[in-house]
Amino acid sequence: MKNIQSYITENKERFLNELIELLKIPSISADSAYKTDVEKTADAVKISLEKAGCDLVEICETAGNPIVYGEKIINKTLPTVLVYGHYDVQPPDPINLWDSPPFEPVIKTTEKHPDGAIFARGACDDKGQMYMHVKAMEFMTSTNQLPCNVKFMIEGEEEVGSVNLATFVKANHDKLKNDVILISDTGMIANDVPSITTGLRGLSYVEVEVTGPNRDLHSGLYGGAVANPINILTKMIASLHDENNHISIPGFYDKVEELSKDERAEMAKAPFNLENYKKALDIDAVYGEKGFSTNERNSIRPTLDVNGIWGGYTGEGAKTVIASKAYAKISMRLVPHQEWEEITNLFKTHFENIAPEGVKVKVTPHHGGQGYVTPIDSIGYQAASKAYEEAFGKAPIPQRSGGSIPIVSLFEQELKSKTILMGFGLDSDAIHSPNEHFGVWNFLKGIETIPGFYKHFTALSK
Amino acid sequence: MKNIQSYITENKERFLNELIELLKIPSISADSAYKTDVEKTADAVKISLEKAGCDLVEICETAGNPIVYGEKIINKTLPTVLVYGHYDVQPPDPINLWDSPPFEPVIKTTEKHPDGAIFARGACDDKGQMYMHVKAMEFMTSTNQLPCNVKFMIEGEEEVGSVNLATFVKANHDKLKNDVILISDTGMIANDVPSITTGLRGLSYVEVEVTGPNRDLHSGLYGGAVANPINILTKMIASLHDENNHISIPGFYDKVEELSKDERAEMAKAPFNLENYKKALDIDAVYGEKGFSTNERNSIRPTLDVNGIWGGYTGEGAKTVIASKAYAKISMRLVPHQEWEEITNLFKTHFENIAPEGVKVKVTPHHGGQGYVTPIDSIGYQAASKAYEEAFGKAPIPQRSGGSIPIVSLFEQELKSKTILMGFGLDSDAIHSPNEHFGVWNFLKGIETIPGFYKHFTALSK
Repeated sequence: MKNIQSYITENKERFLNELIELLKIPSISADSAYKTDVEKTADAVKISLEKAGCDLVEICETAGNPIVYGEKIINKTLPTVLVYGHYDVQPPDPINLWDSPPFEPVIKTTEKHPDGAIFARGACDDKGQMYMHVKAMEFMTSTNQLPCNVKFMIEGEEEVGSVNLATFVKANHDKLKNDVILISDTGMIANDVPSITTGLRGLSYVEVEVTGPNRDLHSGLYGGAVANPINILTKMIASLHDENNHISIPGFYDKVEELSKDERAEMAKAPFNLENYKKALDIDAVYGEKGFSTNERNSIRPTLDVNGIWGGYTGEGAKTVIASKAYAKISMRLVPHQEWEEITNLFKTHFENIAPEGVKVKVTPHHGGQGYVTPIDSIGYQAASKAYEEAFGKAPIPQRSGGSIPIVSLFEQELKSKTILMGFGLDSDAIHSPNEHFGVWNFLKGIETIPGFYKHFTALSK
Repeated sequence: MKNIQSYITENKERFLNELIELLKIPSISADSAYKTDVEKTADAVKISLEKAGCDLVEICETAGNPIVYGEKIINKTLPTVLVYGHYDVQPPDPINLWDSPPFEPVIKTTEKHPDGAIFARGACDDKGQMYMHVKAMEFMTSTNQLPCNVKFMIEGEEEVGSVNLATFVKANHDKLKNDVILISDTGMIANDVPSITTGLRGLSYVEVEVTGPNRDLHSGLYGGAVANPINILTKMIASLHDENNHISIPGFYDKVEELSKDERAEMAKAPFNLENYKKALDIDAVYGEKGFSTNERNSIRPTLDVNGIWGGYTGEGAKTVIASKAYAKISMRLVPHQEWEEITNLFKTHFENIAPEGVKVKVTPHHGGQGYVTPIDSIGYQAASKAYEEAFGKAPIPQRSGGSIPIVSLFEQELKSKTILMGFGLDSDAIHSPNEHFGVWNFLKGIETIPGFYKHFTALSK
């Protein structure tokens, strides 16, 4: 029987070329101008699942972008793995910082990826990682090594909050019934330090608008006499953190899970080099909540970051204007037990309360989701751990991530099953940034590791 | 001999049509894309000065936009009036807030302008006000009533700091020699409350850039662990005012002219209705430096306003990114005795000093200028006062303005003559804002008032 390594060796050029074709389609879900490209991508994913051996593949329409559903049911008494991924991508802005166009994939070597990396928006997040599952499926079906049932659910709105996926999941409990959910949309510590993500942060994303005078004003004639919405917005945002970088929204920390001394000591053992971290980002110092380490700040602690701000004149040269309005997009990363809808409301109430006289404030919630923690004693985690050990030659480290996949906690609530996060990207892969890339080695290593999960999960389920 | 009123009655349609043609050319000096339009406007101004009776008109090239110079010297023993104005305009952004396109002038009536107002970028600031002088000149030369010598200097970079005009003035003391400088680039209190501007604020305009990590980062993976340049920028800007809205830059107030109790009491007599002011701007409260009235805050007190801010993702929807860079354009309005270059340096030093570890800060000065005060006992002021009294039927009120015409203080320094600021616009004319307009009545009233200034100034100079 053919093994996965030789299958990859024979087919890797084709795998890469297929992924490159998928990456060429600009499936940007945040911008409605790309609606047609989003639909084109869904069609391409459908075709790839059919070719990989699914018996049934459907484009499921939603109020937003379609969900691609595929399945291969070999025996109803065997366990079922549900693979989740997303085919939509982040906007590529700022375009001018890309070394090559975001939707014209190129393979180049980097320090961390001596075998080459594919540079394109979505290369790692998540087209590349999602496609590893399609190719692992192809291997298992074409070589008669699929040990259990498989379902695929690949959505097109992960980058904008998965609102319509939630509706779809709630309405399709039977169709989506499974024993474990498998997702590759996270990262690992390093190519020689495999890790499995056991925790995700939740998210609350809001947009704020501050309105002062009813029109833009001349800053000479009105400057100093009326509330300038930009000045006010900066004051309001600045006040959201205190001098220790604690978030100052009343009630924000009430439900935060506090880790024990032992748990923090365990976390501190993960390999981390502060000097390399600073050097990679070209910063002279890290910055964050007092009393916590860098790895704690970006995983077990909640945060509040402005993701975008704008107002007034932003063109070339100078304009002496007091803008009528100023805006910001603000996201909060949440930790287990913080309820994202409650946090969104706390933010809204607080932000409206701190607005001074002379301005009006509007807070518009965008989307959100709960944090998530996977237990490492589940058979899903154990199956994944064995699969990594076979592929990498060493056991993976369980690791909390700072990122969010809001839908994971909804999966558990609705489908009553645990999610295993097998991520093969690196933090340095620049997801959500210019020059996003995904190592060719990582892409192929993912394809190699995944069939092991199916094998061990089926065996452990007996 | 024909009087000015009947001349206006006979020619007003033509005057308006000529101005409308001038307003159609988008002479935006802040944006180099409009270079050709700027030059086209200079040519149009040249032709208008020739038609108005100037004996010599030149386009004077500079390192930036050209200066139009014109003169009519009737007798070297008579006084010389130098008229200054500008043909460049502010950028029209935000375009979508204009009710009609900014460079397609239309005449519509408003509450304050029942005889109609011309809506177009530059209608009031300053093409309309500058053109009043051209048409007053035409009246005086065509009816043989010019009592003295006249020089025109109409520049194309007032909205971007008049850097090249300064060079031109310094290099042309003889050519520009005059006894008084006349400018219409300010406003008056109301159509039935004529006023002459006796004070202008200075200006320091800077752009700031805050750089954090060397690339945009995923806010989940890095959020809370590195300095977010937008959060930091809001904190830095917020800290520039204390809780009483005093500016917190060390040394900022050191040279500020403090007015006496009597002077402030005199100022407080100017007609002002706070409720109407708030209603016109649709705000529930004014906002500004503690201890000062609205009219004081926007005239005799220095200010610091953000004119533009930007960073991160500002498009549709949501992007969870920590931007590498954040920017703001900040202007400070200064009062007499504050040196603009010194204030720019104080700002730069302070802003660099307050940057926390983890970010780099760059401060780029744009331009600036000194404040200015005109004495009301000069013959220039007296001549203007008499001209207003004849045209309006009542004496004008001397008034300090919050705006800046940075070049005025340079004129005094280089050319050793005082400037008289005869402005005919209203604060509600929305200069620098969408829907800028200039009352037809005001335009014609300006043309009517100006010849009186020449008559009285020549008489008082004897």
